[in-house]
Parts: sequence; C-alpha cells; structure tokens
Amino acid sequence: MRETVAEFLSRPKVRYFILGVIMFNAVILGLETSGTITAKFGGLIEALDTACLTVFVVEIAAKLFAHRLKFFRDGWNIFDFVIVGIALVPAAEAISVLRAMRILRVLRVLSAAPSLRRVVEGFVRALPGMGSVFLLMAIIFYIGSVMATKLFGQTFPEWFGTLGLSAYSLFQIMTLESWSMGIVRPVMEVQPYAWAFFVPFIMVTTFAVVNLVVGLIVNSMQDAHEQEANDQTDEYRDQVLTRLAAIEAKLSDKA
Amino acid sequence: MRETVAEFLSRPKVRYFILGVIMFNAVILGLETSGTITAKFGGLIEALDTACLTVFVVEIAAKLFAHRLKFFRDGWNIFDFVIVGIALVPAAEAISVLRAMRILRVLRVLSAAPSLRRVVEGFVRALPGMGSVFLLMAIIFYIGSVMATKLFGQTFPEWFGTLGLSAYSLFQIMTLESWSMGIVRPVMEVQPYAWAFFVPFIMVTTFAVVNLVVGLIVNSMQDAHEQEANDQTDEYRDQVLTRLAAIEAKLSDKA
Amino acid sequence: MRETVAEFLSRPKVRYFILGVIMFNAVILGLETSGTITAKFGGLIEALDTACLTVFVVEIAAKLFAHRLKFFRDGWNIFDFVIVGIALVPAAEAISVLRAMRILRVLRVLSAAPSLRRVVEGFVRALPGMGSVFLLMAIIFYIGSVMATKLFGQTFPEWFGTLGLSAYSLFQIMTLESWSMGIVRPVMEVQPYAWAFFVPFIMVTTFAVVNLVVGLIVNSMQDAHEQEANDQTDEYRDQVLTRLAAIEAKLSDKA
Amino acid sequence: MRETVAEFLSRPKVRYFILGVIMFNAVILGLETSGTITAKFGGLIEALDTACLTVFVVEIAAKLFAHRLKFFRDGWNIFDFVIVGIALVPAAEAISVLRAMRILRVLRVLSAAPSLRRVVEGFVRALPGMGSVFLLMAIIFYIGSVMATKLFGQTFPEWFGTLGLSAYSLFQIMTLESWSMGIVRPVMEVQPYAWAFFVPFIMVTTFAVVNLVVGLIVNSMQDAHEQEANDQTDEYRDQVLTRLAAIEAKLSDKA
Repeated sequence: MRETVAEFLSRPKVRYFILGVIMFNAVILGLETSGTITAKFGGLIEALDTACLTVFVVEIAAKLFAHRLKFFRDGWNIFDFVIVGIALVPAAEAISVLRAMRILRVLRVLSAAPSLRRVVEGFVRALPGMGSVFLLMAIIFYIGSVMATKLFGQTFPEWFGTLGLSAYSLFQIMTLESWSMGIVRPVMEVQPYAWAFFVPFIMVTTFAVVNLVVGLIVNSMQDAHEQEANDQTDEYRDQVLTRLAAIEAKLSDKA
Repeated sequence: MRETVAEFLSRPKVRYFILGVIMFNAVILGLETSGTITAKFGGLIEALDTACLTVFVVEIAAKLFAHRLKFFRDGWNIFDFVIVGIALVPAAEAISVLRAMRILRVLRVLSAAPSLRRVVEGFVRALPGMGSVFLLMAIIFYIGSVMATKLFGQTFPEWFGTLGLSAYSLFQIMTLESWSMGIVRPVMEVQPYAWAFFVPFIMVTTFAVVNLVVGLIVNSMQDAHEQEANDQTDEYRDQVLTRLAAIEAKLSDKA
Repeated sequence: MRETVAEFLSRPKVRYFILGVIMFNAVILGLETSGTITAKFGGLIEALDTACLTVFVVEIAAKLFAHRLKFFRDGWNIFDFVIVGIALVPAAEAISVLRAMRILRVLRVLSAAPSLRRVVEGFVRALPGMGSVFLLMAIIFYIGSVMATKLFGQTFPEWFGTLGLSAYSLFQIMTLESWSMGIVRPVMEVQPYAWAFFVPFIMVTTFAVVNLVVGLIVNSMQDAHEQEANDQTDEYRDQVLTRLAAIEAKLSDKA
Repeated sequence: MRETVAEFLSRPKVRYFILGVIMFNAVILGLETSGTITAKFGGLIEALDTACLTVFVVEIAAKLFAHRLKFFRDGWNIFDFVIVGIALVPAAEAISVLRAMRILRVLRVLSAAPSLRRVVEGFVRALPGMGSVFLLMAIIFYIGSVMATKLFGQTFPEWFGTLGLSAYSLFQIMTLESWSMGIVRPVMEVQPYAWAFFVPFIMVTTFAVVNLVVGLIVNSMQDAHEQEANDQTDEYRDQVLTRLAAIEAKLSDKA
C-alpha cells in the first residue's frame, strides 16, 4: 500500500500536476494583490487558493504516509513541509503578515522543478565554505555596532541609538548606500573625526565581501575543473601506466 | 542570377559600403537631436536619413532574393530584418517613440562588423547557462513583489501599490540605489519590522547575482582552457601513446 | 617552571576557557550599550568587565613569562598584546572614545579560534601582492586631491577646501555614493567642465579596484591549484619516469 | 659623449635622485594647496617648484641628446615628455586649470619606479583585449543618448537636453548612482513608461561591464597559468619523449 502511494507520487504526470498547481496558485495569489479583482472575484480567488492548499496538504500527507519518518531525511521534504505549514497557520487567523506569507508557497516550485533544485543545491553547497568568513563578518558587525552605539548613539539616536539600529545603519553603510551624504557627513558636522571609524569599516567589510566572492569563484572553478578534466586525463594516465607495465612484463619474460 | 547577387553582397567593398552607410546614418540621427541643426537643415537630414534607409531596404531585399528562405536561418539576418522593419514603421507615422527608435538601426553595426559580432555572440552564448538562475530570480522577484504589495501597498501606494510598482521598487532595491535612505527607512517609520523583509531580500538577490557572475567566469574560463591547453596537450598525448604502441609492437615481433 | 606554564596555556581546556571569557566579555560590552541595563546593573557590568580584563592580562603575563621575548615573534601575540594594552589605557581615564575601543578586545576571538585565524591569515597573506596597486591608488588619490583642491576648493570649500576634505570626497566618489547628484552636478552648475575631471577619475579608480580584485582571484586560484593538483600529478609523473628508466635499464642490460 | 650621458642617466644614483625630486615636488605641490602656507612661504614654494621642473627639463633634454630620435620609441619616454611639457605651458600663463595640472608631474613616479611601471604596463596590456567590448559600450551609449535626448529631452532638458547631457546622465545611471530616486522616478511621473527604456539600459550596460571584468579575469588567469605551469610541465614532457625515443632506438638497434 505504502509502495503504491510512493510509486504514484513519483510518476511524471503527478509531479507535473503538482508543478501546475504551484504555478496556478502563484497566479491566484498575484491576482489577489489587485484591489479591483479582489472586489469582484474575492470569493472565487479565496476558494481556488484553498483548493490549491488542499492539494498540497494531501500530497504531503500522502508522502508522509508513504515514507513515514524517512520523509524528514530529505531536506527538500522538510522545506515543503515548513512552507505548507506556514500557509496553514494564516488560514485560521487574519493577520496581514501571515496572509502575505502564503505566497511563500510558490517557493515549492524550487523543490518541484529539477533544474531550479540543482541551482538552489549549488547555492546551499557553497554556503559552508563561506562559514568562517560569515562568522568573521558577524564579529566585525557586532564590534562595529557596539562602537558606533557608544560613539554616535547620543548625538544620532535615530541611526545609532541601540545595537539594532547601529547594525542596520552599518549594513546600509556596507552596501555603500548614501553612506557619506546620508550618514557620515552629517555625523562629521558634530564629530569631525567620525570618518576615522567609518572609512576603515567600509574598507574592511568590502574587503571581506570581495574575499567571499573570490572564495566562491575558486570553489566553483575547482568543482568544474575536477568534473571535466579528470575523466579524460585519468583514462589517458591509466592507459600509459598499463602499457608501460605491459612493456616491462614482456622485457622480464624474455630475460 | 541569385548567385551573382549573393556573391556581390559578400564582396568586401560592398560590406564596407554598408558599414559606412550605417555610421553615416548614426551621425545623421545624432545631428537630428540638436534643435539648431534641425531648424536649419531639417529637410536635408530627413532626406539623407531616407536615403540611408533606402540602402538598407535594398540590401535586405537583395539578400532575401539571393538566399530566399535560407535568409531566416541566420540569427543576424533576422536581427537586421527586424531592425530595418522597425525603422520602416515610423517613417509612416509621426509618433515620437517610434521616431526615437529609428536610432536602433545603428545596431546593424553589430552584425556588419565581425569583431563586434563575435563579442555579441559571446554574450548570447553565455545566456543559456544562466537560464536557471534567471528563472530563480524571476521567481524571487514575483514572490517579493506579491509580499511587498500585500505588506506595504496600502501605506506606501506610490512604491508598492501594484505588482508592477513593487517589482520596479524591488529592482531599485536590488541595485542598492537609495534602498535604505530612500525606501526602507521611511517604510520603517510606519512599519518598524520592514527591515525583516528587505534585508533578507537584498542578501538573497545579491547572492544570486554574485552566483550569476561566478557562473559566467567559470564558463569563460573553461572555454578558454579547452581551446588553448588541449591543442598542445592532445598532440603530446597522441605522441606518447603512439610511441608506446610502437615499442610494444617491436617487442611482440621479436617474441 | 616556564615549560609548565607554557604547557598549561596550550591545553585545550585553558584555550576554550579564554575563548569563553572573550565571548562573555563581548556580551557584557554589548549589554553596556543599553541605557536601561546600565542604569540598573551598571556596577555589576563594570565589575564583570574588569574581571574579564584581569583574565586577559593574567593570560598575557603568563605567556610573556613562559616564552619571554620569543612571545613577540608571533604576530598573533603582538596583536593580543596591543588589543589588551588599548583596553588597559581607558580603564584609567574616562574619555568616551577610549571606552568605546574596549570592544576591540573582542577581536581576540580572531587569534583564539583557529578557523577565524586561518581566514585572517589568508586575508593578510593576500595584502603584499596588492602592495603595488595600493601604492598606485595612493598616488592617484594624492594627485586627484591636489587637483580637486586647486580646481574646486574655492567654489566648494565644504567638499574640496583642504587636501583632507578632497581626499574624503574623492573616496566617496570612488565608492560611487551620490557622486553625480550629490557632488558633480552641483559643481557643474558653477564649473561646467568639472565632469572632465571626475568621470576619468571614476574610470581610473574603478579600473584599479577591479584589477585589485582580479589579482586576488588569480592568486587564490593559483594557491588552490598548486595544493590540489600537484600531489596527484607529481605522483603520476614520478611513476612514469621511474618505469621508463627501468625499461631503459633492462634494455641496456641485455645489450 | 652621447654614450657617457646615457650611461650617467642610467646609474642607480641618478635614477634615485630623480625619484627623490619627483616626491619632493609632490610634497611642494601638496603644500601649495594650503592657503596659510602659501601666504607665508609662497615665494619659496614657487622657487622650489621651478627648481624641480628645471631638473626634469634638464633630465629629458639630456635623454633626448643621448638617444636622439630613439628616445620616442619608448612609450614611457613619450609619457614623461608630455607630462613635463604640460608643466611648462602653465609656467608661462596663470590660468588656474593649467596650474592645477602641474601636479600631473607626479605621475612621472610611474615611469621612475619599476614596480609601479610593471603594474601600469599590466593595466595597459589588458586594454586591447577589451577593445571590442569598449567599442560595443560606446555604441550602446551613443544609441542610448540619441534615444534619451529624443524621448526625454523636451520634458527634462537639464538631464537629457543635448547628446552630451544625455551621455553624462546615462553614465550616472550605469554607475547606478541615484538612477531611480534621482532620475527615473521623476521622469516616470511625466512619462510613465520611461522604465521600459532605463531598466533594459541598466541591464545591458551592467551585463557588458560584468563581461569586461570576466574577460580581464580569464586573461590574467591564462597569463599566470602559462608562466607558472609550463616551465615544469614542458621539462617533464621533453624528458618522457626523449626517453621513449631512446627506448625505440635501442629496440631498433637490436632488431
């Protein structure tokens, strides 16, 4: 019974149907943003959305039934489970934030379409290699936030009043958005040496970001290099070594 | 007859003449932007532009005659056909947008000059490899637009009132242009947790763009690597394998 | 005696304890930024901070005792020494800048955690290779600052009044922050040819920055390439050459 | 006689002296930007600047005497000649722009210091490979400027009134500086479909810039790869082929 369900779920037709429902649901939720359309067809849209959600819930319930706890071994299944779970909560309540999060259901297309799946898996695989640099950046941000709050918190409470506000402002400065005209020049009018904090901060964080990207490039390159080059090279090497061994053997035979 | 025309069109002199007409047309259309010059020589400029267009139409008609439907097998021919076609439409009407699009005719220089042709072909060849990431970004933008419209559409209708406005604002935010001072800080004054939507959005889209660039680098690298290294390496490998085979053969002969 | 201390300091438990104290100190200094918390627990926070500092001072004193002057041969030891030293100065005085710099003590986590240590060492190792380009950029900035001060210093003293102000403004322009709307367009209203200075400046500095990044990528690539590829390749090459030598030897024996 | 002068000019001591004069001149011209210092020591600074210039003129005259017309075969000599030439013109007149250009003399340090020389030569060597992409960008800018002038010239004459103004505005937009809040949103209030011109323009130019950088990376990589890898690899390959030839020869001898 479980196997029949598992086999049914993995049929191409079923998977394309699920993909179709995801995309149909995306369109529905997009239409819902239009005031005019919601005013006219609000009930229909609501109903269709509930229908889509029902399909997802049934699919995940069937998968859970088919694979039992093995279901949670695959990261993509957990991903689907959480996304549909989020969608179930707002169905009960009417808070606008939760309603807005229903669109996250469309992210299911990432697990349903194999080519997108591979891209996301590539992204996720790149993350651990960048772990140390991320940790370093978190430390730099924490130190920077504490310093900025202490140095500029009293004069510019709107930007650096608390650790959180400082972290946000420093993130803005790291992205180079209005860092000088918007933030540092006004600060420098009160504290003229403020540049001695902000300019090094920009240099250090930019350098760290550049190193993140460089690391990403080098890793992708090595992956690509290994996959491609080695198949061909290894075959050639094996051939050379085998032939050399054969020649040696023949020479030994004669001796 | 058809062959004579085809041979005539592929002569260097004819191709340089066409290239010259394209550049002359570019200058004419540039001069037309100046009010003073148009006031004085408007009629002449109009006449010269029509002359250039006539040359293009004749050339494409001749090519169509020479190659018949094979003409449309080459992407560059379709490109030329469409560009000159666009230029023909506004000649009839006087809508300013269509008149402005006549300058697109200068793009014909991309198909006429071989070195530019190669650059553009390189660009176009890079696109399919980035297809999945583009699709992923389109999905992220769609989800982001729906969420932004739902969350901020009522408080900031100018920026997030409709799906289209949200998509434009999110594109601006992705390019990091005034994202904080211009958009997110004003939004945060009304909805203090708005950063929880925008900061992750910036991180995800920036990461996706970086991955696009990394993919581009890795692909270019492999293309360059293959072209250069292999000619030399392959020759060497063939030489080694041939010699080893010869040695084995000699040993077998003697045995 | 000295050896016992050195052995004690290098025990994993001791090192994890120091790491723990660093992180605890980071939290303490973070809490201190909150006005409410400082008002209530100011004394306790101050005391805990002093306790952490005491641990650091004792640790460094012990290290100095154990390794004597060899202590200063390791860059990381000097780093720790300076950071804790900075922290000692403000303990005496009450200047806000020095108080704010106490948080720099958290940077000790860089020397205490091996994975972060490696990242920072990677960054530092990348710097000398970029020395010439940095020098070049310093020259470009100096020349640019002198020219900007001479050309725009009298009309826009706020931005280009002195060498220092010009250097800051040019740094802002190099990061492309509000370069046109904020600086160059206002300047061009008075001196219409100002773009002839700023646009080339942007192009040259951007090109130099891109070259810095390219150099970083190429270096990282070569490091990665050498480490990985050569182990395998070298072994294969040695094998081929050894076997060829053996075959030759056998042939010579028989002759 | 000519040879004696040439030998004298190439002595390390003479070259370090010239380098010293360049840097002394840089400091002098930097001091000149300060109003207070010029007011006090204006005459002295003027005199020292003239002295430095005299040294440069004498050096170049001596080089011209020593190498005659061969002098102009080296790009760096032409570079020095032009730079010192520029400096001679303003000595006569008192136009502020020409006076400001005297600082360009400091660029002579690029030709005098070998390590900087190599960096600049690396930059210059990278340029021809990017020629086609630069040409493509020039065409895109020309077409974009003509279109922008035609479409938005009448409604926003300040930004798009002439070809030159449009080109400057499009350059600003390409650098993503205030493109949306500063330019496109105001334009869209009058012409709502303006985004259909600007967003594709940003995408195309950004993509072209990314391709420039990718090309630069691939080229640098290949240069580095060739230099390093081949010395070692070539030696190994020669060894293998020589040994194989020797074995074959021995086998033939016996046969």
